[in-house]
Amino acid sequence: MTQTEPQAPVAALPATTEEWLARAAEVAAVLAETAVERDRPGREPYDEVALLKGSGLPALLVPAAYGGGGQTVATALEAVRVVARADASVGQLLGYSYVNQTKLWFNGSEEQRDRWLTPTAEQRWLWGGAVNPLDDGVTLERAAGGFTAHGRRTFTTGFSVADANILSARRSDTGAAVQAVLGPDRDRITLGGDWDNLGMRLSASGSVTFDGTFVAERDLLATGDGSVGAGPSPRQTLLTPEIQTMFAHLYLGITEGALETAAAYTRETTRPWVLSGLQSAAEDPYILQTYGRLVARAKSVAALAAQVAAQLDGAIAAGDALTREQRGALAAEVAALKVVATELALDTTTRVFEVTGARATANRVGLDRFWRNARTHTLHDPVAWKEREVGAHFLTGVLAPPTLYT
Amino acid sequence: MTQTEPQAPVAALPATTEEWLARAAEVAAVLAETAVERDRPGREPYDEVALLKGSGLPALLVPAAYGGGGQTVATALEAVRVVARADASVGQLLGYSYVNQTKLWFNGSEEQRDRWLTPTAEQRWLWGGAVNPLDDGVTLERAAGGFTAHGRRTFTTGFSVADANILSARRSDTGAAVQAVLGPDRDRITLGGDWDNLGMRLSASGSVTFDGTFVAERDLLATGDGSVGAGPSPRQTLLTPEIQTMFAHLYLGITEGALETAAAYTRETTRPWVLSGLQSAAEDPYILQTYGRLVARAKSVAALAAQVAAQLDGAIAAGDALTREQRGALAAEVAALKVVATELALDTTTRVFEVTGARATANRVGLDRFWRNARTHTLHDPVAWKEREVGAHFLTGVLAPPTLYT
Amino acid sequence: MTQTEPQAPVAALPATTEEWLARAAEVAAVLAETAVERDRPGREPYDEVALLKGSGLPALLVPAAYGGGGQTVATALEAVRVVARADASVGQLLGYSYVNQTKLWFNGSEEQRDRWLTPTAEQRWLWGGAVNPLDDGVTLERAAGGFTAHGRRTFTTGFSVADANILSARRSDTGAAVQAVLGPDRDRITLGGDWDNLGMRLSASGSVTFDGTFVAERDLLATGDGSVGAGPSPRQTLLTPEIQTMFAHLYLGITEGALETAAAYTRETTRPWVLSGLQSAAEDPYILQTYGRLVARAKSVAALAAQVAAQLDGAIAAGDALTREQRGALAAEVAALKVVATELALDTTTRVFEVTGARATANRVGLDRFWRNARTHTLHDPVAWKEREVGAHFLTGVLAPPTLYT
Amino acid sequence: MTQTEPQAPVAALPATTEEWLARAAEVAAVLAETAVERDRPGREPYDEVALLKGSGLPALLVPAAYGGGGQTVATALEAVRVVARADASVGQLLGYSYVNQTKLWFNGSEEQRDRWLTPTAEQRWLWGGAVNPLDDGVTLERAAGGFTAHGRRTFTTGFSVADANILSARRSDTGAAVQAVLGPDRDRITLGGDWDNLGMRLSASGSVTFDGTFVAERDLLATGDGSVGAGPSPRQTLLTPEIQTMFAHLYLGITEGALETAAAYTRETTRPWVLSGLQSAAEDPYILQTYGRLVARAKSVAALAAQVAAQLDGAIAAGDALTREQRGALAAEVAALKVVATELALDTTTRVFEVTGARATANRVGLDRFWRNARTHTLHDPVAWKEREVGAHFLTGVLAPPTLYT
Repeated sequence: MTQTEPQAPVAALPATTEEWLARAAEVAAVLAETAVERDRPGREPYDEVALLKGSGLPALLVPAAYGGGGQTVATALEAVRVVARADASVGQLLGYSYVNQTKLWFNGSEEQRDRWLTPTAEQRWLWGGAVNPLDDGVTLERAAGGFTAHGRRTFTTGFSVADANILSARRSDTGAAVQAVLGPDRDRITLGGDWDNLGMRLSASGSVTFDGTFVAERDLLATGDGSVGAGPSPRQTLLTPEIQTMFAHLYLGITEGALETAAAYTRETTRPWVLSGLQSAAEDPYILQTYGRLVARAKSVAALAAQVAAQLDGAIAAGDALTREQRGALAAEVAALKVVATELALDTTTRVFEVTGARATANRVGLDRFWRNARTHTLHDPVAWKEREVGAHFLTGVLAPPTLYT
Repeated sequence: MTQTEPQAPVAALPATTEEWLARAAEVAAVLAETAVERDRPGREPYDEVALLKGSGLPALLVPAAYGGGGQTVATALEAVRVVARADASVGQLLGYSYVNQTKLWFNGSEEQRDRWLTPTAEQRWLWGGAVNPLDDGVTLERAAGGFTAHGRRTFTTGFSVADANILSARRSDTGAAVQAVLGPDRDRITLGGDWDNLGMRLSASGSVTFDGTFVAERDLLATGDGSVGAGPSPRQTLLTPEIQTMFAHLYLGITEGALETAAAYTRETTRPWVLSGLQSAAEDPYILQTYGRLVARAKSVAALAAQVAAQLDGAIAAGDALTREQRGALAAEVAALKVVATELALDTTTRVFEVTGARATANRVGLDRFWRNARTHTLHDPVAWKEREVGAHFLTGVLAPPTLYT
Repeated sequence: MTQTEPQAPVAALPATTEEWLARAAEVAAVLAETAVERDRPGREPYDEVALLKGSGLPALLVPAAYGGGGQTVATALEAVRVVARADASVGQLLGYSYVNQTKLWFNGSEEQRDRWLTPTAEQRWLWGGAVNPLDDGVTLERAAGGFTAHGRRTFTTGFSVADANILSARRSDTGAAVQAVLGPDRDRITLGGDWDNLGMRLSASGSVTFDGTFVAERDLLATGDGSVGAGPSPRQTLLTPEIQTMFAHLYLGITEGALETAAAYTRETTRPWVLSGLQSAAEDPYILQTYGRLVARAKSVAALAAQVAAQLDGAIAAGDALTREQRGALAAEVAALKVVATELALDTTTRVFEVTGARATANRVGLDRFWRNARTHTLHDPVAWKEREVGAHFLTGVLAPPTLYT
Repeated sequence: MTQTEPQAPVAALPATTEEWLARAAEVAAVLAETAVERDRPGREPYDEVALLKGSGLPALLVPAAYGGGGQTVATALEAVRVVARADASVGQLLGYSYVNQTKLWFNGSEEQRDRWLTPTAEQRWLWGGAVNPLDDGVTLERAAGGFTAHGRRTFTTGFSVADANILSARRSDTGAAVQAVLGPDRDRITLGGDWDNLGMRLSASGSVTFDGTFVAERDLLATGDGSVGAGPSPRQTLLTPEIQTMFAHLYLGITEGALETAAAYTRETTRPWVLSGLQSAAEDPYILQTYGRLVARAKSVAALAAQVAAQLDGAIAAGDALTREQRGALAAEVAALKVVATELALDTTTRVFEVTGARATANRVGLDRFWRNARTHTLHDPVAWKEREVGAHFLTGVLAPPTLYT
């Protein structure tokens, strides 16, 4: 990846699922070459976004009717996993882009989809968000033709580099929590540039301050089913399962990236243990066993991820026919996936050092980025409470109420 | 299950995959009622075999051309898993029956398949085996029309109650290790009745002594591809991956049975911890979390099991087109499944007591049978060496050579 | 141990701590010879109690002033650990005997100690108890000179075979929960003989029914410090830490017994894995590593056990000078010990099969008794809540209130 | 710690063990204030060394006869642990300083001890080393009065900032591997300044190149017992057990530092999980449990560390009376300690984020330094082979041969 040339070549959109995933692998290969050197400085990921847009990946999920790739969410998440193997931050940007777009599927009107998905496909827009349910800091004040946004959102993902964003806020007139689309011509915005955390350093997750940013009335998204006083329909609450499934794909990508990077190091660089009497690290019984354990678990989590993603596709396809019970059962599967993917990523990214050896702790090797990425993002919401959610559903059949975390 | 009435009613064979699995669930439901009381005495499982035969399950895998259910191995293993939830010994009998039959697919001639699979479908034969690669105790001496078998096989599964069996032995004339089919009219056999182990107590795994048992020449199975000096073709070595996949389905069934049995106990019997201040054990945060962890891991192993079983079906369908590389890659997937299924079953069957409480250790509850079954069978071959096999394949791409364990 | 001769030879009491522990080792050696065969039938442990009494071990803890061994609780628990290596049920009987005796130290009067400890030393009385805080089933009715006890206690340890017992009950006149000593001449008692659980099968833990059993007024133990309305002083609440420390010593003994038994089996019987190319199981890298992991953890738990037992001795020696803070800090150490000892015992007793192999699942080997003993007793009170107790003390300094579990 | 004032105040040496440990705690308190800000730049630790020397800690272990503190190795390692809680790099510098000094105890002559230990006490010398058994890169050429050293040592600890160092090299005349003391007036040395690894960033572990550095003949240390062709006596091989015990104290310090730092964060900053309904993170059942698990395990490892350090003191005190069996048994205890301390540190330093939450991943919090320090140093030699060593000793009684790792 050329750091000095922000504009990556623009490729035509792939046609088949296989071609889309091959495209993701190409992007991953480019990212992998510079992943270590780009990671520590943690700059705003302009180059990375240019690379994504050039590849067409941001258009993968846009329905064909709007000019997009027309792929399913399962394929989108598979692309996220492939990219995350090389660079989890960019995987996160891509994953949030897909998820934020699908707000329009679940909560948008036909007209809103027309307005926003068409340029998304054509110009390969990256989508971001300033949505944080724990942070009640943004309000919408009434203004001509809509509202003005005021306040600060502590964490965002992709907002600074995205073309379109989802904004959550509280209306000062009605007190209602609402969400809206914010397009590229956003004004009166200050980017904090204050994301300096362990991992996911290129994920553009800093704060954003709104000082009168205009939000058009027509860009407000539906939150209920339209009837007075109604909560959302099951179909309208699919975003959280989708987000959490995307997270698991990130963690899986991180795990697989760590294993592949470690294996190359073991093969090429690790020396056999001096007291072992062996000629090669690749013959060490404990190194082989540790790889085997980690790989076996990764395969099982990957199999569950594929299964859950297919269930998610099915739930999305069901549309208004989706029942509360089906949505709740899906959420329990998603939560189970999150639990095992979290455990897998944390354990693998620590253990890979045991199969590479002491010299792999040199910062130029950069093997720690996998742990840092996993450790940072898996704290998004506490896994212990996800375990409880899975257990409660299994034991009593209770469905977790739809929230921004369940 | 009526202990006093050995002859269970004979049902017609199901038609669809769903019906076959429903049939397995019916059998499981019958077995579950008496699982605890049948377990400890550990008698020869005549009643259980009658139940299986009555249900038609032993014919599930026989190709439709021979009058059988014509289902795939994946469906057969799913049936094993369902039965094993209620009674792992009976699941083992059924699983070995399927696997032993498929010797004829991989190593039998067309004529042998005709002779043996037709009655298997018609009379719902259970298949067993006296095959132990670690035990060189049976020899075949030349006799008119074939051979006579002499010697002792320490462990068998199902031999004592099966209609047909696979026998492994060494020919005294050529020194070659061979396998043969032994039908129902076997003679000069002494059953040891000496299987008294922790678990899998109804699996009919005792010793067998052969004192001149006749083995017809035409019942010898092929071990190579027919060319002089050739080893087996990839297709001819699929039995071990199939067996090991079956094992994983057993372990999964044991795990799921333990979780379901424990959950019923927690809901109905477990009292909330006296110092917790809670009204119900089903509200205990630690009980919920423990269930969640175990269930999430079980889901991921189940997803991998389904995936591997489908790959196995694909490899079987490929027939002679199967390459050594494909066979080796499949074996690595199977080994990975074995690794995670073993860990899952051992951990789950110990932990279920923590979500049921001290009173669940009463022998009348019988919750320990899951651990005993898992602990006993998972020692079939050492999981550490399986982990190594997975690791070696991942790290260096090496294919494990086909053996009776890999 | 001679099953047909209930009366074991009576040895003189040892003089030094080393001699006491050597005596415990002698008892363990006798028990080990028949541990497997005595375990499954689970008879009332009359022979085992005779052996204990003959050895003098029940007098170890009685102060020298009363004619006993005058050893500390730390030494008593070490003796429990040594005996539990061979037979955890007998270790449990001995451990409960020590603990129940010390009720007199913490809650007895000088006169009560005189009356009960003198024959305990002289006749090597075993002490038991019918004390269950979760079971409010026994009441004391006023009678001439004391009370009559009525009701049923579900679980006891040692009651059926003990010479003296602690009884907990509720006074019907005042409603107060009280405890009393019940000597050998107890009347109107029905033993349930209904302890048939997974493990600790010889621990005489069945139910007891009282149908007017006389309890003398002078045998009631103090529960408060004597001042009106006062709760117990810190010194008076040391029984629970002592009990829980004893539990940890039991679990440590079970762990060490499992490791020693397994190691003998590995050395003498286990065959090297057929695909390993090794000549001996004792060279298998995974068997060696598994032993190493388990042994290393056992050493760390043993070190903590020794440290906590010494702290307990110190707290007992402090007497009325013991503060609430010191008692609370001790309880947190004890809880930590319980946590790690539980995890250790459960993991070790399952894993030992992996270093012994499939044939070690034969019931005649009896290697499962360690798991059954550990799994049964570690459920006494839920370890998750102990973990919470340790965490709360560490995080906030909160002292767990003295209860029968903390 | 004042970065701009390299010269810390010089305190008088403490008198008692308690005072020495209090002094270590004072140093730790100073280091803790700036630990995060000093960590990332990873400069040569001149200020930190000045602080250590000012405190007198480097003189703790020097026998009183030479003017030092006269404390035992157990106390020295306790001081290392205390310092490592705040700053593991400085703990490492101090630990290696103690260990390198004791080369003179085990392998030095009376005259050598006089020459080197006297200024060590008086001027509180820090000791370092350029000793790496895996790196055969330094040779000694004969020169007048001794030798000149040539070559490069990849990793050192403390060499760049130490007053005295142990150097290992190969004599070009005899081919023998030898060790020597190198005092403060070393010449012809180039410091690589190339230690840029994940953790232990202030441990001065970069490379050193020798280009004719003079080594006096009288500074060569004994490697055998003096008799022709003899290997070292047991006493002369105690350095490795001492080093490995020191490592475990480092890991314990890291663990305890992580727990204390996390607990302060949880109490002061962590917000209760939004869906938990709790008012405070310190009430979260899973946070409390996780702390409890980690703390309980840390207590057990600490207890073993204290026990092993006392055994090490005993072995040192035994001097020439130490037998090979005693040395081997000690080494097995040390290996066990290393195993559990490694597992503890890795698990704890990853898990602490789960009890502090997502915001604790901000780099200004610096909570990751504990994981980085643990992950880096625990790779010194592979723990799997240590586990094997413990297992082999337990199973067969074999003594690991004395090497620079065992």
